[in-house]
Amino acid sequence: MIESTIQLRVLYAHTDKMGVVNNARYLEYFEAGRNDLLRKTGYPYTELEKENIALPVIEANCKYLSGAKYDDVVTIKSFLKEMPTVKIKIDYEVYVKDKLIASGFTIHSFVNLDKMKPVRPPEKFLNILKKLKN
Amino acid sequence: MIESTIQLRVLYAHTDKMGVVNNARYLEYFEAGRNDLLRKTGYPYTELEKENIALPVIEANCKYLSGAKYDDVVTIKSFLKEMPTVKIKIDYEVYVKDKLIASGFTIHSFVNLDKMKPVRPPEKFLNILKKLKN
Amino acid sequence: MIESTIQLRVLYAHTDKMGVVNNARYLEYFEAGRNDLLRKTGYPYTELEKENIALPVIEANCKYLSGAKYDDVVTIKSFLKEMPTVKIKIDYEVYVKDKLIASGFTIHSFVNLDKMKPVRPPEKFLNILKKLKN
Amino acid sequence: MIESTIQLRVLYAHTDKMGVVNNARYLEYFEAGRNDLLRKTGYPYTELEKENIALPVIEANCKYLSGAKYDDVVTIKSFLKEMPTVKIKIDYEVYVKDKLIASGFTIHSFVNLDKMKPVRPPEKFLNILKKLKN
Repeated sequence: MIESTIQLRVLYAHTDKMGVVNNARYLEYFEAGRNDLLRKTGYPYTELEKENIALPVIEANCKYLSGAKYDDVVTIKSFLKEMPTVKIKIDYEVYVKDKLIASGFTIHSFVNLDKMKPVRPPEKFLNILKKLKN
Repeated sequence: MIESTIQLRVLYAHTDKMGVVNNARYLEYFEAGRNDLLRKTGYPYTELEKENIALPVIEANCKYLSGAKYDDVVTIKSFLKEMPTVKIKIDYEVYVKDKLIASGFTIHSFVNLDKMKPVRPPEKFLNILKKLKN
Repeated sequence: MIESTIQLRVLYAHTDKMGVVNNARYLEYFEAGRNDLLRKTGYPYTELEKENIALPVIEANCKYLSGAKYDDVVTIKSFLKEMPTVKIKIDYEVYVKDKLIASGFTIHSFVNLDKMKPVRPPEKFLNILKKLKN
Repeated sequence: MIESTIQLRVLYAHTDKMGVVNNARYLEYFEAGRNDLLRKTGYPYTELEKENIALPVIEANCKYLSGAKYDDVVTIKSFLKEMPTVKIKIDYEVYVKDKLIASGFTIHSFVNLDKMKPVRPPEKFLNILKKLKN
């Protein structure tokens, strides 16, 4: 399993009148985690784009267990548990201190940037992931 | 089944560099639909708040089938298919013209606003929904 | 003076823990107004793009006089008071009912979409504006 | 002059179809800078809230000189140049590497959290700022 851990501070702009981070904002937190996860593999998202590949989200899911408050430091853990096929799934856990406050996943398809048609993931990317798994 | 249909115009601020609406923004589109769905029942969300009740999202899911572009008018359909228990589930479909571009759901729990503890939905709300279903 | 009036409903996602619309969101409200203002001239923004022209914001300003609350319907008035030169300035007023809650402006430069270099506004656009002014 | 420097990575969610960070997002970047600036004084915003004080934005201004692209690391510098009166002004500069891409300011008023009425800034806060200035 390949994983990444980042931390972000909750701003006023992330919260809503319920006093906690708005549900939609978690998908941005997931993106921040995913960005870091790919960078950690040595194959950042910008590298995929250079090879004319994009990874649009085809499904996103989030379960909200508790709320993150203004000025909390949230820890976002991202996990690549399975080798990608024509799709790649990334799992996320969001914590405030040791408390799990949300978990979820996103599924992405590999497409070419110019035509947005499905393509196979680059061999180089798969090889990197294989090595990291071992 | 109780349903609502609203329309929103896609702004630059909704899109990302892929040229289509960013995945996180769909959860805001869902909220816009949900707001209207509850208003249509005659029991808007502000009414629930007056009775000390909130409906935090406990799960959100979205499947992205295609993209909505800048200046597109998106149609957001929201559906209440099942009577609420201690939870309420709302389904969504997002269209550009006749094309379904995304579908999803949110699940909410009924909690009291002051303590954020689970409560039963107000009888009045359930009665309204029962009538609308028939 | 050319003007437009639109209305939007305040969502949870627009508010922050202070219970009113977050300051950053007003720039999105301005964009919603601007989009409509240009459409009203008969020369929508998408038309400018087709002619390889973009209007990036080079300055934005907002004065916040009062707050808009969840579920309020905000009225966004947009004004084109001066004929564009290489720049175009748009003024905004945001109301809840009859109460002015914010005012501001954005200044944009005309650039070509491919190189993002300054260009003159299209003659056709200027001609339309001249007619509307009279 | 009291100042703070933080860095953030540009996400897809921050950009719009023009390929650079959307103009509204800069006001969130400013908030991230402001949050850090106040923390650096030893009197973070959460401390003000504990003393029943809020700092709503009463004016925001941003000049956009250039764009920040996806995956850029933006540096946000925040400055407190003048001692607060019943208002406090904070200046911002946003850089990508050494290039200034935006600058702006926000002005806030001191209000009490419960009634949102203007109040004087806490003596303790003013004393801290006086010491930092010397």
